[in-house]
Amino acid sequence: MSDESDFTRLADLRLTIVGLGLMGGSLAMALRGKVARLTGVDADPATRQAALARGVVDSATSDLAEGVSNADGVVLATPVQTILRLLGTIGPHLTDGCLVMDLGSTKHTVVEAMNRLPPHVMAVGGHPMCGKEISGLAAAEATLFRGCRFVLCPTGRSPEPALRLARALVEAVGADVVEMDAERHDRLTAAVSHLPYLLSVALVGAVKTVADEDPLAWRLAASGFHDTSRLAASQPIMMRDILLTNREASLDALEQAVDVLLGLAAEIRAEDSEALLARLTAIQRARMDWEASR
Amino acid sequence: MSDESDFTRLADLRLTIVGLGLMGGSLAMALRGKVARLTGVDADPATRQAALARGVVDSATSDLAEGVSNADGVVLATPVQTILRLLGTIGPHLTDGCLVMDLGSTKHTVVEAMNRLPPHVMAVGGHPMCGKEISGLAAAEATLFRGCRFVLCPTGRSPEPALRLARALVEAVGADVVEMDAERHDRLTAAVSHLPYLLSVALVGAVKTVADEDPLAWRLAASGFHDTSRLAASQPIMMRDILLTNREASLDALEQAVDVLLGLAAEIRAEDSEALLARLTAIQRARMDWEASR
Repeated sequence: MSDESDFTRLADLRLTIVGLGLMGGSLAMALRGKVARLTGVDADPATRQAALARGVVDSATSDLAEGVSNADGVVLATPVQTILRLLGTIGPHLTDGCLVMDLGSTKHTVVEAMNRLPPHVMAVGGHPMCGKEISGLAAAEATLFRGCRFVLCPTGRSPEPALRLARALVEAVGADVVEMDAERHDRLTAAVSHLPYLLSVALVGAVKTVADEDPLAWRLAASGFHDTSRLAASQPIMMRDILLTNREASLDALEQAVDVLLGLAAEIRAEDSEALLARLTAIQRARMDWEASR
Repeated sequence: MSDESDFTRLADLRLTIVGLGLMGGSLAMALRGKVARLTGVDADPATRQAALARGVVDSATSDLAEGVSNADGVVLATPVQTILRLLGTIGPHLTDGCLVMDLGSTKHTVVEAMNRLPPHVMAVGGHPMCGKEISGLAAAEATLFRGCRFVLCPTGRSPEPALRLARALVEAVGADVVEMDAERHDRLTAAVSHLPYLLSVALVGAVKTVADEDPLAWRLAASGFHDTSRLAASQPIMMRDILLTNREASLDALEQAVDVLLGLAAEIRAEDSEALLARLTAIQRARMDWEASR
């Protein structure tokens, strides 16, 4: 606390958010009145106009250099491949001691790119574990981050003041800070976040094959299909970027799921009622234990 | 309509429901006041007591023969393997012209067993496309069937009056009748209903493997994991019976999903950004089209 005056407090922060979609727009809304100034950078004129009209940001521009030039903090809220590209060009436009964060769903490639920022800049990787399958500013809401886990990954540009400011920002939007290194983040989220998406895609793909022959399949699909396939409606560019920037861990998680599916297939084929029931019972217990622990 | 007087009308029906769990209990609640008498058959004394105390049924017994002896209609609302066993023994206890239905999630083995009922009995296979991952009478509710598709499968014991009474029962609980043969039902539901369960099980299995090494995985799991894994909490005996009485179609659906997963893995491994994006975009569109058509 004693050295807090040396560094920017959240209330004094001039913050620029790059990308005013679901995540960036929600972050701006959640930080309204809690920071000194909010600037939005977005390539889409309609999005900028809507963000200004709704009071989501104080100013908006399509020009990255202009948008970040006087900022004390910059949050990159775009698909991961765009974050990586921005991190390669943004450095020279940033003021001394500016904190760069991101909201990308994979972290080790982002942290590597953050480590290559010029030394006058601070950086912390971020990943709020929340979202919706719909995207865009129209879906944004101030409460999106409330109660969610928000992972922070330290980088080679993360002195203690950087982490303190990042934590303050996370807490200000009502999320719970979880700190870990980027590799651990990527391994765990491949299983709990990217794999659900891949399985959801596999479900829709398989049903589509059946429904192409007999369209009544779509009509019989009910709440089970609805929930299990929900993530398949996620924004494809965002998801492609996630999968390609977390290849190894995504492939590992995928392989583990295929192993379970092949195990189930073997038990069903062999009519091994006992093994099948034991497996389904263990899985049911794990899911119920997780639900109870939330 | 002219010959309706020859057959039982719903309001005159003395109905017996075998199995007062989520589905049977909900059916009884939904038919309250719409049939002449409701009898419940359940092996569990606490369930019978609760059903009587809550006014779900007029009378309850653990004795199948006693419970069905004066019924004009009997609905079997147990796991599928139990339905098959009951269909093998129930015949001699049924009155002339009694209609037997079931609520099982697979139909061709059930319809085969219905075809072996004595000729004085009528039978129609049924499958309401609704449910919850939780089970038991405590989870039952009168509105469970409202707005859901309710598949009816004709059998060799389905004269027109049987189908008419079955349709009346479905409509009385607020569901939409969809009639099709049992093989078609089983092929379509393997894709839209049993496959979501299998993928949900695979997700929990894969996450469990990761979490056994690093329990933080469970803490990072959020709404995406929640929805995609919801069905894994389904009652294991019910699900085992479904998978083993619809083996071929379940295995086909499983294989189709594994094909998609292996295709995704190949594209991720090769970093084939274009093919991956094209696939994810086509799947997103299919899921959004389905959602819009509901």
